[in-house]
Amino acid sequence: MAPWDDLSLDETALLQAIFWSEGSSRFALSDRLEFSKSKTNNLIAGLLDVGLLEESGLRGSTGGRRPETIKLSADLGVLVGVDLGATSLDVAVLRPDLTVLARHTETTDVRTGPGVVLARLRVLMRQLLAQCGMTAKQVIAIGMGVPGPVDFESAQLVNPPLMPEWDSFSIRDYLREEYSAPVFVDNDVNLMALGELWRLQGGLQNFLVIKVGTGIGCGIVCHGEVYRGANGSAGDVGHICVDVDGPRCHCGKLGCVEVMAAAPAIVRSATEAATSGESPLLAASLEANGVITPELVGQASRNGDAAANRIIQESGNRIGQMLASVVNFFNPSHVFIGGGLTRTGPQLLASVRQSVYQRSLALSTRHLEIQYTPLAERAGVVGAGVLAMQETLKHRKASA
Amino acid sequence: MAPWDDLSLDETALLQAIFWSEGSSRFALSDRLEFSKSKTNNLIAGLLDVGLLEESGLRGSTGGRRPETIKLSADLGVLVGVDLGATSLDVAVLRPDLTVLARHTETTDVRTGPGVVLARLRVLMRQLLAQCGMTAKQVIAIGMGVPGPVDFESAQLVNPPLMPEWDSFSIRDYLREEYSAPVFVDNDVNLMALGELWRLQGGLQNFLVIKVGTGIGCGIVCHGEVYRGANGSAGDVGHICVDVDGPRCHCGKLGCVEVMAAAPAIVRSATEAATSGESPLLAASLEANGVITPELVGQASRNGDAAANRIIQESGNRIGQMLASVVNFFNPSHVFIGGGLTRTGPQLLASVRQSVYQRSLALSTRHLEIQYTPLAERAGVVGAGVLAMQETLKHRKASA
Repeated sequence: MAPWDDLSLDETALLQAIFWSEGSSRFALSDRLEFSKSKTNNLIAGLLDVGLLEESGLRGSTGGRRPETIKLSADLGVLVGVDLGATSLDVAVLRPDLTVLARHTETTDVRTGPGVVLARLRVLMRQLLAQCGMTAKQVIAIGMGVPGPVDFESAQLVNPPLMPEWDSFSIRDYLREEYSAPVFVDNDVNLMALGELWRLQGGLQNFLVIKVGTGIGCGIVCHGEVYRGANGSAGDVGHICVDVDGPRCHCGKLGCVEVMAAAPAIVRSATEAATSGESPLLAASLEANGVITPELVGQASRNGDAAANRIIQESGNRIGQMLASVVNFFNPSHVFIGGGLTRTGPQLLASVRQSVYQRSLALSTRHLEIQYTPLAERAGVVGAGVLAMQETLKHRKASA
Repeated sequence: MAPWDDLSLDETALLQAIFWSEGSSRFALSDRLEFSKSKTNNLIAGLLDVGLLEESGLRGSTGGRRPETIKLSADLGVLVGVDLGATSLDVAVLRPDLTVLARHTETTDVRTGPGVVLARLRVLMRQLLAQCGMTAKQVIAIGMGVPGPVDFESAQLVNPPLMPEWDSFSIRDYLREEYSAPVFVDNDVNLMALGELWRLQGGLQNFLVIKVGTGIGCGIVCHGEVYRGANGSAGDVGHICVDVDGPRCHCGKLGCVEVMAAAPAIVRSATEAATSGESPLLAASLEANGVITPELVGQASRNGDAAANRIIQESGNRIGQMLASVVNFFNPSHVFIGGGLTRTGPQLLASVRQSVYQRSLALSTRHLEIQYTPLAERAGVVGAGVLAMQETLKHRKASA
């Protein structure tokens, strides 16, 4: 029996508020929940008593009394956050306050199918939990991001273009063999958006997270909530057309931003520049490493290679062209860019910005900020952890 | 003193629920508000007594007892809804349940400035109220849609590209000279979206309303609420680029969908086809009417004119091209198209649909419905009425 099986609605609301506003004072919490100070104090005292909350490290002095930091107790157990990309697997064990306790990242290939990938995931989860001195029983919940459209209720992928073998496969059932904890699955970029929303503690209401890696996707936060669209496919910006005469995309259409600007396009152009003799630097890089990666293109660009520079600029311009349409439509306050392509370095971001500011309306961009995701490479696993904790608290509330 | 100056929060919540769910039974209302049946009955009885609600026309028999229809009382007064387009002025007097009591539409030109346009509006309001046997004192609230970006709090236009003279002009102060009722102003297409949201009684959560007239704009409903964006400029889709080599738009950029597909583009192309001899039908139409309107182009197309048909198709395809990007990003369940260009007839809609289904992802369009706005030409004034009533009830609540 989980330690919170006997909570009242008020207690659950308080736990949610604490999860979403790390380090809040009792006063701020009572204000946020519209509870009286004494009610808040009593609830907190009770939850401290049963070990659901803990007080820790005093906050910096503000001249007066030092208010203590209240957070979800480490005694609750741990969360597992998984960020599965088309070519990468990132797994983390996190405390209930989302501190990363252990983490491992490696390359993978989702096209090998769920059997291979999930067997490996299970091994990694076991290893990471052992590393933290934890067992499967101490896992509160598991959150997982996957690079395709997800039916959120069933936690299954629906017609994923990059990974057809995963269609309707039950990740939940697979993990249930070893874990009794609930499993929540969502699209990877929705989880990046959820992670940033958590980091910002609700400070921004309307923003976008663009992931640029093997594909291009977008997480949408609207009215302070992740927006999934009528069929869960919102944010599928990779197949927005940026050149009606462009090359054919794997989706069958011409000139999608994904086929023109994502990682495979950059690698292909850079490999051409290396083998055609256009870029001696990329040629040397190819010889030394066997393959060209976006990171190596970024390195060559910073070392003054004109071809590498042009390739990154073209990609950034195309992404910016797509983003300009999206910004005109959605008028977000911030656009955060994440994913493997950010490893090319600051040149990509500069090109995206230039292209957006040039093509969007002045009113939409007047206060618009475009930057790399502040959670950087952790955005995926942190978002998966947020999903796991948030849904667990929500379900508590629903069954209370 | 308004008849609702002494309402409790519960009573206000009930009035709001009744406004948003016309003809609901007492049972449905208590369910919706999570009030007990006896509490709901008591509240309704009280509000019937003081004349804020009225019972009317029995609903169709469902075999058992006939439940009565409860709605906001006509004794409350009337709403004024104004839909100002770039070239049209549409004014209506509505009952609190949004039945249109009197309505007048005429052409205008917003570029003549607020003095001229609002003086005419004042005359029309006076005439329409007199027509209903009403006075300025019986106006509950005034709602107005304008064809430009609006700062909702101050009810002022902000840098409106089509109507620079209106920048920061206070419509609210102007109307206050004659009306003590509150005045609410919003962008015209946001109000169309609000009108459809009201008509649907919250049945759809995520949909778009596209207005195609002199300009092209989009109203966004997200999570069941009108979404205005970080700076109130969300839905500014008219300047999404659909052809990088296209003609220059008044905004300074190339190939905006507005400059290629809105009413002025259709009129220009059709006038060319008339004068060049390409289309004898359009030439005859031009001679008979002095000018070509979108309606006349539609008529020529239905009479088999190839040039008219091509012009409408091209416009629909461009609008569909823009919409395909927006649909991939937002994944709405419905797109409703309104505005003056719909007067060209069904051909435009067919071309838009074809273009969207061809260019958007299968997952985004699987259940997508694209149709003309069901409220048709009334969408603007009804939306303005919804704004007026909704904000009045909201402010009641805030000050309760």
